[in-house]
Amino acid sequence: MTRVGSDKVIVQKYGGSSVADAERIKNVARRIAKKVQEGYKVVTVVSAMGKTTDNLISLAKSVSSRPDERELDMLLTTGEQVSCALVAMALKDMGINAISLNAFQVKILTTKSHNNARIMDISVKKLKEYLDNHDVLVVTGFQGVTEDEHLTTLGRGGSDTSAVALAAKLKCDCEIYSDVAGVYTCDPKLYPQTKKLQYVTYDDMLEMAATGAKVLHSRSVEIAKKYGVKIYCGSSFSDEEGTWVVDRIPEWLEEPLVTGVSLDRNQVKVSIMDLPNDANVVTDIFKKVAEKGINVDMISLLKNGSATHVSFTVVPERLDKIESLLNETLAEFGAKYHFYGQYAKITVVGTGMRSHYGVASKLLEVLAKHGVEPELITTSEIKISVLVPEDVAQELVKSICEAFDL
Amino acid sequence: MTRVGSDKVIVQKYGGSSVADAERIKNVARRIAKKVQEGYKVVTVVSAMGKTTDNLISLAKSVSSRPDERELDMLLTTGEQVSCALVAMALKDMGINAISLNAFQVKILTTKSHNNARIMDISVKKLKEYLDNHDVLVVTGFQGVTEDEHLTTLGRGGSDTSAVALAAKLKCDCEIYSDVAGVYTCDPKLYPQTKKLQYVTYDDMLEMAATGAKVLHSRSVEIAKKYGVKIYCGSSFSDEEGTWVVDRIPEWLEEPLVTGVSLDRNQVKVSIMDLPNDANVVTDIFKKVAEKGINVDMISLLKNGSATHVSFTVVPERLDKIESLLNETLAEFGAKYHFYGQYAKITVVGTGMRSHYGVASKLLEVLAKHGVEPELITTSEIKISVLVPEDVAQELVKSICEAFDL
Repeated sequence: MTRVGSDKVIVQKYGGSSVADAERIKNVARRIAKKVQEGYKVVTVVSAMGKTTDNLISLAKSVSSRPDERELDMLLTTGEQVSCALVAMALKDMGINAISLNAFQVKILTTKSHNNARIMDISVKKLKEYLDNHDVLVVTGFQGVTEDEHLTTLGRGGSDTSAVALAAKLKCDCEIYSDVAGVYTCDPKLYPQTKKLQYVTYDDMLEMAATGAKVLHSRSVEIAKKYGVKIYCGSSFSDEEGTWVVDRIPEWLEEPLVTGVSLDRNQVKVSIMDLPNDANVVTDIFKKVAEKGINVDMISLLKNGSATHVSFTVVPERLDKIESLLNETLAEFGAKYHFYGQYAKITVVGTGMRSHYGVASKLLEVLAKHGVEPELITTSEIKISVLVPEDVAQELVKSICEAFDL
Repeated sequence: MTRVGSDKVIVQKYGGSSVADAERIKNVARRIAKKVQEGYKVVTVVSAMGKTTDNLISLAKSVSSRPDERELDMLLTTGEQVSCALVAMALKDMGINAISLNAFQVKILTTKSHNNARIMDISVKKLKEYLDNHDVLVVTGFQGVTEDEHLTTLGRGGSDTSAVALAAKLKCDCEIYSDVAGVYTCDPKLYPQTKKLQYVTYDDMLEMAATGAKVLHSRSVEIAKKYGVKIYCGSSFSDEEGTWVVDRIPEWLEEPLVTGVSLDRNQVKVSIMDLPNDANVVTDIFKKVAEKGINVDMISLLKNGSATHVSFTVVPERLDKIESLLNETLAEFGAKYHFYGQYAKITVVGTGMRSHYGVASKLLEVLAKHGVEPELITTSEIKISVLVPEDVAQELVKSICEAFDL
């Protein structure tokens, strides 16, 4: 627990459903006020209310088929400013010395990559100045500002990243509140018998976050790991015990083989065929993809005698960009590409895999029982992902949970 | 017409109803694009969409009975940022090189008086930098930023002020578009036979704006007068000829005796009785009222042998503040105060009054015909205002229009 002056500091983040209406905002304010009464200075990060971001995106699409990215950030950043102002108002109404602050005011400096920016720095000086004069800072999540004062956003779920980055800067713990009371081995909507984890390692959480488990934004876990920020995930609607995301599971707990299963729907497989056998060509393609700020996943490369074939997955929203990029890039090689839609990615995660064999074969066995051959397989030391048809994905997740006793 | 580099510059402001939905935003974008095609660089000021500001205020009141003023500004400023981003998107979609900018980005520096701030400066350097690289700047109206980076708003209708201030800084004309095609002698809703003015002087417009004619925010007319900014008021929905607000009516037009009649509903009369006959006491009261940022109007003072009585009008929203202030201030003198609600102010304006007598008597004659004795009368060189019961006000306006041939 860090102290600024003589005070303990904590970062708390509340998700969109926790601030969806006036009653919930007052509830969040009461939770923050309680922490203040316990002697904390609280830095609260708040997401946009309920479906605000979705509504703003619809609004953008109603005036432009492809909304300009810089302007989209200008639009979306208003969502968090609204909820922050309201939470600060509710707190002041309770007599708490609170102030709302946007990315400009706290100088949350990011890269220039609109819609998908990365935090480069946050002004600790500004934060401490505000903390000297207030008990609660309500800071806009999800957004930042570039050196030349353009507004940026950190991508979907970026408020988690804002919260953990603030905790890293203030060297304190970070509590993430949402409508889910912690991290589960699997999404309860997919597998009702799922178990809640008391602890999960950064590494497992990272794999789970990156693969569709919507509890935490993966960038936030990366930052937490890098700076050793302890994250507590809990529910804003109850006092039920949540999950701690930490460097390592306490020794008195046995580490499970598999920590969790996650499902990422709505994946598109992109296949590029007949590229020349030249490492520079593939490197060049992925470099261009990265420059456009497009995240690709499940990259798989196959080389045969005369040609190289590459497949990877993307979210459908990025297809437009990928298409124009591939049209430009592939023409000179006479290579072809295809998009295959309606896939889902299932990922099995567990730091425990490092020291155990047979997770992959057990997973493929479950798939085989359902007559499913995965389209793509990717593995890391602590996870295995398979791309399968979306319509059987949910059934597969259930069987996997049963097989691994989750 | 000013030129920045080799370009003509113009400021255009679009009101909330002009950007109320996606179709109207695209319509506004087309109008701006046309101006760009005519060779102009356009600085567009946009209000919040439709009823956004009202909705945000309701939201604020749902979390706090008396929303903190600083936080209210944080909340309300999002409205203009949304519409600016959308207008810029629509323009970019048409291939126009546009960028949206908020008060931070253009450094619209204001006083610290939240909810009612005054513009102190705008960075011409920033504006010119952006104009060098863009054909259209879409700037958030109504808002500013203090020296220590808190967001402020300029009070209801403040977007007009933003627009004229920008035009003053850029030394160019200012076009104000709304759902009304110009300035009328009287609100058409009150008197359908009203006439549209081709020209109106700053002075007449100032009186009309200050007295409830909702075409222009009075601060904007003050700034226009001070810096000689020519304002054109027109409709964003048609190409119907609008009204020019200028220093003096062109000589070939005969100046009318009365330019317009306006109606300000929802007035409360505050009467303070039995103050000591001491100039310092009254001065002190009004000084404290001003320090609280409360606008009072129709001040009337009556002194008799032993005591001074003061009356003035305020809008009901300020009554809370007035009440606590009077409770504090009046106790020591044993003075009493009363609030009288449900009044309306009717104002007759005309620079032509300067050289003509009899306007006041003609006005009182009309009132007398309806059996109404005004509660308060205030006059200036070019206007007369009377406070009358709200329920007869509309009927009186009609009779006044007829009497003065408006």
